[in-house]
Amino acid sequence: MIGWARGGGSDVAGRGVNPVDGGVLEPEFLAATEAEVARAGDLAASAFPQYAALSPRKRAGFLRAVATRVEGMGPALVERVTAETGLPAARVEGERGRTCGQLRMFADLIEEGSWADVRIETARPERTPVPKPDVRSMLVPSGPVAVFCAGNFPLAYSVAGGDTASALAAGCPVVVNAHGGHPGTSEMVGLAVVEAARETGMPEGVFSLVFGAGHGVGQQLVRHPEIRGVGFTGSRAGGTALMALAAARAVPIPVFAEMSSVNPVFVLEGALRERWGAIATGLHASVILGAGQFCTKPGLVFVAAGREADQFVAKLGSLVAATPCVAMLNREIAENFATRRSRLGSMTSVQVVAEGMEQQAGVFVTTSRAWRKNGLLHEEVFGPAVLVVLCENEADVIAAAEALEGQLTATVHAEAADSDLVRGLLPVLAHKAGRVIHNGYPTGVEVCHAMVHGGPFPATSDGRTTSVGSAAIARWTRAVCFQNMPAGLLPAELQDGNPRKLWRLVDGERTRAPQA
Amino acid sequence: MIGWARGGGSDVAGRGVNPVDGGVLEPEFLAATEAEVARAGDLAASAFPQYAALSPRKRAGFLRAVATRVEGMGPALVERVTAETGLPAARVEGERGRTCGQLRMFADLIEEGSWADVRIETARPERTPVPKPDVRSMLVPSGPVAVFCAGNFPLAYSVAGGDTASALAAGCPVVVNAHGGHPGTSEMVGLAVVEAARETGMPEGVFSLVFGAGHGVGQQLVRHPEIRGVGFTGSRAGGTALMALAAARAVPIPVFAEMSSVNPVFVLEGALRERWGAIATGLHASVILGAGQFCTKPGLVFVAAGREADQFVAKLGSLVAATPCVAMLNREIAENFATRRSRLGSMTSVQVVAEGMEQQAGVFVTTSRAWRKNGLLHEEVFGPAVLVVLCENEADVIAAAEALEGQLTATVHAEAADSDLVRGLLPVLAHKAGRVIHNGYPTGVEVCHAMVHGGPFPATSDGRTTSVGSAAIARWTRAVCFQNMPAGLLPAELQDGNPRKLWRLVDGERTRAPQA
Repeated sequence: MIGWARGGGSDVAGRGVNPVDGGVLEPEFLAATEAEVARAGDLAASAFPQYAALSPRKRAGFLRAVATRVEGMGPALVERVTAETGLPAARVEGERGRTCGQLRMFADLIEEGSWADVRIETARPERTPVPKPDVRSMLVPSGPVAVFCAGNFPLAYSVAGGDTASALAAGCPVVVNAHGGHPGTSEMVGLAVVEAARETGMPEGVFSLVFGAGHGVGQQLVRHPEIRGVGFTGSRAGGTALMALAAARAVPIPVFAEMSSVNPVFVLEGALRERWGAIATGLHASVILGAGQFCTKPGLVFVAAGREADQFVAKLGSLVAATPCVAMLNREIAENFATRRSRLGSMTSVQVVAEGMEQQAGVFVTTSRAWRKNGLLHEEVFGPAVLVVLCENEADVIAAAEALEGQLTATVHAEAADSDLVRGLLPVLAHKAGRVIHNGYPTGVEVCHAMVHGGPFPATSDGRTTSVGSAAIARWTRAVCFQNMPAGLLPAELQDGNPRKLWRLVDGERTRAPQA
Repeated sequence: MIGWARGGGSDVAGRGVNPVDGGVLEPEFLAATEAEVARAGDLAASAFPQYAALSPRKRAGFLRAVATRVEGMGPALVERVTAETGLPAARVEGERGRTCGQLRMFADLIEEGSWADVRIETARPERTPVPKPDVRSMLVPSGPVAVFCAGNFPLAYSVAGGDTASALAAGCPVVVNAHGGHPGTSEMVGLAVVEAARETGMPEGVFSLVFGAGHGVGQQLVRHPEIRGVGFTGSRAGGTALMALAAARAVPIPVFAEMSSVNPVFVLEGALRERWGAIATGLHASVILGAGQFCTKPGLVFVAAGREADQFVAKLGSLVAATPCVAMLNREIAENFATRRSRLGSMTSVQVVAEGMEQQAGVFVTTSRAWRKNGLLHEEVFGPAVLVVLCENEADVIAAAEALEGQLTATVHAEAADSDLVRGLLPVLAHKAGRVIHNGYPTGVEVCHAMVHGGPFPATSDGRTTSVGSAAIARWTRAVCFQNMPAGLLPAELQDGNPRKLWRLVDGERTRAPQA
């Protein structure tokens, strides 16, 4: 879908595959040609000034129309997602709800408008030696962006998912690179976006959707000179490749890649003593949720070695041993998981505690000493596997936290007896992760104003932003200020009368009032 | 200065040079050894947790003590700056005022505290199907940072300049790479920072200052594994080299490089007709200010060809012809300027309108057609030179704006007669520049909450942030959220009682009240 038109495509084709039965799904999807990708970028650029200038109410109407149309597809969409990904219908329906909720959250956010961080400094012409000018700043959309769909969120982080919704809300046209794992889903949602755009009077090019086989189409998209930012959710290899491409452009652009996180869980001694059974149960549920195919799946658990740790590990093992085998999203993911899982199990320093049915899920155990020495044990294993690391003492726990790479989340289970250690541990974890969870589990990401779903590299390419929640809009923006601009030429957000009733910083004071 | 200690240095040495008389200044400065640079980074890392955990009031006290000590050096500092840079005493005194003003502005900002963008979502345990967790987010310092000093701002963008002040305010230890053009100034200010840090009880390593000859020291600093961000003000070649280095690290880090801007000025027809003489006078003053060695020097002027344009160019020429020659900051800059200036003058499509005394300042003129065809005419010429581009019609003006690279500033001179064109032009300029000025001149950057001193590449490496004004603090931070964290473990900023009386976003409402 190049603007309002359907592309002819190249002779390179792909099809959806049902991961449950391996069946090849109709129809065939044709990869976009170079000319089509170029045209999608060009159309986005030509739509940009017009789209960015639309009132937030109009953009909000477009986002809500997308949500309505996604919902309007009803069971047909759910069936296609299930066929292409193996995800059960209940999960797909939940994800659809989240997707439409996100679209409406961003619609509300831009209608309210205070996200634009308006700052006004009024002139002081009498100031000596130099008069103070009138300076007014706000966030503006950075330009057309490219969004790469996530394999594990065929709705919520794909064609009309979080990155698309936040970018469209900010005022950025979007070119989406469809995911090969769910082409039919992508087409259905893409059509819904195009129809919503036409229905609400958006300019052509505000949205395009390209299919690629291999990496060529995506690479061309990132290199397109008019693209100003990239959103990506996927593997570390894929994300770092896009980072390198974007940095090598004549005009480098930011890449927001969510890549790799093992989401460490620290079970401190007091918590282990009081709740080892409950924690094993909760952790098991979090590890196997969606066949472990969440970016927030807990992959590493640090516990104090001892009798309770042994009980905890045994219980986790018995739960895992009874875990049914579930079809993973696609064959590549299943094979990658099998490879990494076997590699883990075959290491001399690692003990296999238990395996799930058909050898899918797995619990492994090692010592903190072995973990610290072996970088392979720090890597994400995408799927239902968890490695328990036995720590010798409190210093060992802190040292383990300090040895972690950047993470999306870090979790602590602690009780009153752990209060000293938890105070030492929290600042270390807050420096390593975007979200720090107390006595809970990392799966399940609340979509809200305060969510930070991001974290230092390699969790993401740019740990300064979030991909979930309303604050995600910031990544598609830049600040601009206007100096001594006559009232009639100022955007509504910056006008004295504050017609949009925004919260603004006026001469250092936070206020919603019009300016005197 | 490696923490509290003075390094021994290597056998590579440099000296300050007086650009006015070429005299070599005492003493000799020794480049840091590899071990010293490594130790500066390590000390910064070990200081980080302690420094980041200090109360904002304590960090503010440190910043204010730096300001007091910089002022306390009195004329000795001014004399050293003047000797090393040729900048007149009045300018240096003004820059010192700005430097200390910035330090105090950031001290005030962190004491007030609302910059941390606190967002609180309270729990809804009764929600179905999944209870809503309590989620609370804020901005936290990203870690130790490296700051590269600017040659053209020996105080305001050097050792205790804007990047250092904003990073220290955020809670990030700073390792400064001194500028070879003003080593003595760097040492004096560096000592003031170290003394202020010790006086106010800061941890060792919160600040270090390294001297380098060549690029080795700076490169090692950017590669140091504990460094989490880089601030740089300088040439496009230098900035892009640091961007490449930072992107190639095992853990890539953001670089905030301010590099290259020609700061276009558009003089529309009505303004030209009414005020061509005044605009020529104002523009001339802006071009030659500080020998044109400002990142905001207007280097390109677009005017509608015609009788008034000829008068405007002639007047600008006569003013430039009477402009005295001024010593530039150092020999390298003077030679670069001479080379680029001659290259401009020797192009067949460019006419030399006038030259200043000793052939320093220069006015050149060309056509919009020639300008659009020749990329060399888009490049910054750092020094007192300006190129006037004659446009044929309004479409030509818009096309010129669209052909611009990213800029720090863009300026429009317009009167009532120009209102249609200015409405077409402003969105284009706002997409190209961080600051858009109406009927003014780009030199002179107001330090305030609303300033945006940044812009799309190549003006800066990352057009999403500003290097001037209080919003600069954001570049050294990342967001982190805490989920279901007990009250006693939350930072003060996130506690229900709002003990710091911050503006916060609580369940979507902006409020300063404690939470019920």
